Amino acid sequence: MKPEIAKLGYIALVSADLEKSLVFFKDVIGLEETTVIDGVHYLRAWGDFQHHTLSIEQGDRGYVRHIGWRTKRKEDVQKFKELLQQQGVPVEAIAPWTTPGIGEAIRFKVPSEHTFELYYDVERPSVDEHRRSVLKNQTYKSWAKGVSPRRLDHVNLHTSANSKKAYEFMQNVLGFNMRELLKGDNGDILAGWMSVTPLVHDVALVSRQKEETPTPARLHHLSYWVDDSQDILRAADILREHGFDFVGPGKHAISQALYLYVCDPGSGARVELFTGSYLIFEPDWEPVEWSESERAFGNTYWGDSISKKELVKTTIEAM
Amino acid sequence: MKPEIAKLGYIALVSADLEKSLVFFKDVIGLEETTVIDGVHYLRAWGDFQHHTLSIEQGDRGYVRHIGWRTKRKEDVQKFKELLQQQGVPVEAIAPWTTPGIGEAIRFKVPSEHTFELYYDVERPSVDEHRRSVLKNQTYKSWAKGVSPRRLDHVNLHTSANSKKAYEFMQNVLGFNMRELLKGDNGDILAGWMSVTPLVHDVALVSRQKEETPTPARLHHLSYWVDDSQDILRAADILREHGFDFVGPGKHAISQALYLYVCDPGSGARVELFTGSYLIFEPDWEPVEWSESERAFGNTYWGDSISKKELVKTTIEAM
Amino acid sequence: MKPEIAKLGYIALVSADLEKSLVFFKDVIGLEETTVIDGVHYLRAWGDFQHHTLSIEQGDRGYVRHIGWRTKRKEDVQKFKELLQQQGVPVEAIAPWTTPGIGEAIRFKVPSEHTFELYYDVERPSVDEHRRSVLKNQTYKSWAKGVSPRRLDHVNLHTSANSKKAYEFMQNVLGFNMRELLKGDNGDILAGWMSVTPLVHDVALVSRQKEETPTPARLHHLSYWVDDSQDILRAADILREHGFDFVGPGKHAISQALYLYVCDPGSGARVELFTGSYLIFEPDWEPVEWSESERAFGNTYWGDSISKKELVKTTIEAM
Amino acid sequence: MKPEIAKLGYIALVSADLEKSLVFFKDVIGLEETTVIDGVHYLRAWGDFQHHTLSIEQGDRGYVRHIGWRTKRKEDVQKFKELLQQQGVPVEAIAPWTTPGIGEAIRFKVPSEHTFELYYDVERPSVDEHRRSVLKNQTYKSWAKGVSPRRLDHVNLHTSANSKKAYEFMQNVLGFNMRELLKGDNGDILAGWMSVTPLVHDVALVSRQKEETPTPARLHHLSYWVDDSQDILRAADILREHGFDFVGPGKHAISQALYLYVCDPGSGARVELFTGSYLIFEPDWEPVEWSESERAFGNTYWGDSISKKELVKTTIEAM
Repeated sequence: MKPEIAKLGYIALVSADLEKSLVFFKDVIGLEETTVIDGVHYLRAWGDFQHHTLSIEQGDRGYVRHIGWRTKRKEDVQKFKELLQQQGVPVEAIAPWTTPGIGEAIRFKVPSEHTFELYYDVERPSVDEHRRSVLKNQTYKSWAKGVSPRRLDHVNLHTSANSKKAYEFMQNVLGFNMRELLKGDNGDILAGWMSVTPLVHDVALVSRQKEETPTPARLHHLSYWVDDSQDILRAADILREHGFDFVGPGKHAISQALYLYVCDPGSGARVELFTGSYLIFEPDWEPVEWSESERAFGNTYWGDSISKKELVKTTIEAM
Repeated sequence: MKPEIAKLGYIALVSADLEKSLVFFKDVIGLEETTVIDGVHYLRAWGDFQHHTLSIEQGDRGYVRHIGWRTKRKEDVQKFKELLQQQGVPVEAIAPWTTPGIGEAIRFKVPSEHTFELYYDVERPSVDEHRRSVLKNQTYKSWAKGVSPRRLDHVNLHTSANSKKAYEFMQNVLGFNMRELLKGDNGDILAGWMSVTPLVHDVALVSRQKEETPTPARLHHLSYWVDDSQDILRAADILREHGFDFVGPGKHAISQALYLYVCDPGSGARVELFTGSYLIFEPDWEPVEWSESERAFGNTYWGDSISKKELVKTTIEAM
Repeated sequence: MKPEIAKLGYIALVSADLEKSLVFFKDVIGLEETTVIDGVHYLRAWGDFQHHTLSIEQGDRGYVRHIGWRTKRKEDVQKFKELLQQQGVPVEAIAPWTTPGIGEAIRFKVPSEHTFELYYDVERPSVDEHRRSVLKNQTYKSWAKGVSPRRLDHVNLHTSANSKKAYEFMQNVLGFNMRELLKGDNGDILAGWMSVTPLVHDVALVSRQKEETPTPARLHHLSYWVDDSQDILRAADILREHGFDFVGPGKHAISQALYLYVCDPGSGARVELFTGSYLIFEPDWEPVEWSESERAFGNTYWGDSISKKELVKTTIEAM
Repeated sequence: MKPEIAKLGYIALVSADLEKSLVFFKDVIGLEETTVIDGVHYLRAWGDFQHHTLSIEQGDRGYVRHIGWRTKRKEDVQKFKELLQQQGVPVEAIAPWTTPGIGEAIRFKVPSEHTFELYYDVERPSVDEHRRSVLKNQTYKSWAKGVSPRRLDHVNLHTSANSKKAYEFMQNVLGFNMRELLKGDNGDILAGWMSVTPLVHDVALVSRQKEETPTPARLHHLSYWVDDSQDILRAADILREHGFDFVGPGKHAISQALYLYVCDPGSGARVELFTGSYLIFEPDWEPVEWSESERAFGNTYWGDSISKKELVKTTIEAM
């Protein structure tokens, strides 16, 4: 049986200004802090079931250290290690619990040069009673502060490296299903929305022209889910009251999701607040293809446009 | 006792393509049709309590014939007639029930050259049982079709005529209260939001440079109210599915309202779908002043911008 | 010219457990505190424009000291004093600024024995910059904490005194307009929704059987407005997470409003979170009459029923 | 590799009054009709990707003929057939396309005596252009009529047969994962929420006392998903305007979902309109256990209660 990825786990983020990042993620976005160890803050949303979905620490500049994914079975970590080595991909073994909450893990670079981590074992620390939800199936009380999203949803990665290999690797080696894609007039995939879950995407990969971005691996955004459309409008109010600029609200045609994009002033990482979209339960789903001429419509079905140049420029490195 | 206006009544609209206008207003926006008399269609929203809030008929081009306002008392119609004549304003007397549902009325031009009508007596025709709400305090069943707004909210008028007189006339003669205003660096009022009700505006008046608009009196938009923020997002979906372009959703800083603007393809009249905002109950309200440098922020607190040139250009004449 | 009331001003509440009341109103409901003077806490919602809409202080039991209303003009306070004295109603003159933020005032009992206060002069203290909205037309930042309603909406008063006089007094002396009413099979008004504004009610008065309530003047609830339907559902989540029981969400047929009722554990005062409803701009509005047999439908169009016995029982005294 | 179920497919419903059922499902709920063949109407929601999610036909009484599930792979249909026969379960082979849109299939009774159908091959007929969405990833235009849910979500089945076997069969033979469960004081499972997808439940099974229900296999409800909380409130308005009684809106603690229950007057089948809830991506999810004393809280976190006797009584047979 082939090893499989179960879900997106967490993003390991480095900030040029940790204090600003913590105000942004904890007070404005409203994430909860599981713990702080060795200067690294481990955060999650009130509906996240794992130890953390975001880690953030001080660094000399803002970038993504790696992106963690949980496998379906314990043995999948070793199976993936073997599979990757067969493909000639260097794999780094990470000792269990090196990252708090995360057991035995492996790290490697995908062809777009983003660093992925795979692990299965996790720790689920209990929550202090005064922050714990009265609901047994929910981690923290919701609506405690800020935007208050429910859970981590997906990551959007950009690359200026030849990305054909990356799309193939994501599908053939890591087992992602292509759900929607943007095809260039020359037949190249310009962007792909891929998932191992019924979400339209756990990860999107976007190909960029080399000249724009000297560093191949970049983070376009990480995304947290809110339950209702109105929560996106409430988030806009909250962000303005805190003095933030943002793009949105608007609706993608691709994925049918409502969006609002805002940047963490500490790390420069863009956060998408996200809801709507649809679930794919069909086992024989045919990727929805959008042509290059449909790109603008695909990006913005309606609302404040994400096609703005500056939105593309302000990605951060993802090593 | 001075005569007083109670509320905005209706907009008398002429369309260059009546069929298109009826599809737009009845099927897409979802207004109900009270009656059709002599080729004029009388429409209203499900929560409007009067005979109609929009009339529409075929013409050689799209324009607003006049804007109707209901007075507080029956005698106010005559009192206004006298008051206007004292001001040297020519007044046309309209025989009762010339416009279906509207009794004795007067018509005159405000200094911006828009034609206003004042009346008190109204007819309230009953609604067919299958369209009537099960609620005694509601006219039609809600959510029957299209966007389904609750009621007419306000009109926004543009003028290239010297508008200082218009602002004074609206306040001193017609009794509107200035609620918010945009003041130019030279001290002129560039735009004013005025009401006789606790709404921030029953009417907004915007001053325009002459060169852009050879016709002084223009309609920027008429506005229908929806109850909830999400209804604006639902409207966006409905409009896209019907092939319409629009501006929004977004939120004004001035008036704090959520908006979405779409044009009737028959008359060219712009319709604003509108919710949120706030009510003014204070009897000594001081107008909120916005400076010329705050214009963009005042127009768009967040979201898809209404500052687009084409939005200003596509006004229609209001005779 | 007859004196007129402009709007509901504030409720002066006494709590048996001030600490509990402050947690409830400030942290759970999310009201802001203007100031604390002599142990009295002056609170308001983020969109309230006046000094306070609720005052709360420690007492030996929970009750409403009085209900404040602002007049339309300064001279209306004296005019009302004269009018009331002509009616044989004892009037107490209150020295200006006895209540912080409130100038010269009069107090008197309406026939239902509730104490009303009338005033015109008000003070509008500025808000600390970190709590002040970035919007010029809004007092505080919205969504700062708890349910976060926009503004005070109305009060609902119960009485076991013969209430016929009370309805007449409210209309004929105080100038309230009857908007909707519940008529008993014997022709008596059982409940009336009355307003001086276009709201369906600034005050509702409900007649009760004497045996149930030895004290004639009681508060059924005071009501704060939220902007959107979903805010009522979000309030339900917040209240449950704080361990509160409540009635709702549901929709009244009378007034068409969405509701959720929860009691302050300190004072026992019930707070209604409220949205939807409709505005009445027609100057010749005919009260919507509901018969005794329509009472349940009128109270609960759908949702969690407010007809529960305990809901009626848990009113508090309003002297 | 064990055969696997991918998703809930459709419910084959029989109505005692087909005309009433069609008005209910097509006009009030707002499902679209794919086709009518031999008097059977094939319906689906605007976001359903398959041929139909509900079939409905005239019969002598209302009942569920069978419940269709799609397998993950084509070969899983035969593999399940063998697996079931090994378990001693009689299996009926259904010729391909006997049910329009559904290829080769098998039918059998689960221990609770509900009839399940398994199939893989499906037909996806195109949609008439005027009803087709402008979005490539959406089947029909949304918001065309009635409540307008997005997609089929789950079924809730009741049984008075000894249900221990049923829970085991669902998990061990059909591969459902137990997500939440209600455990009786005697250790029996009283209700289980199970899924093959990340939804909290594709199917819920509830154990009932024999005396209440002489027929073991019953349908408590089938459920359609709406995207936003407010859509549940809008549904309540629409249902009341069409003269329907219903239970809700409310929120389950179990599954965290918003609900509203209404019965098809033709078949008697209950339909749940459903949103919120959460997704389970963790591969090692431990079922959330609720004790018998938590049943009421588990059913109704807040809102109009589903514990009403009549709600349980009005199930229909599912053969």
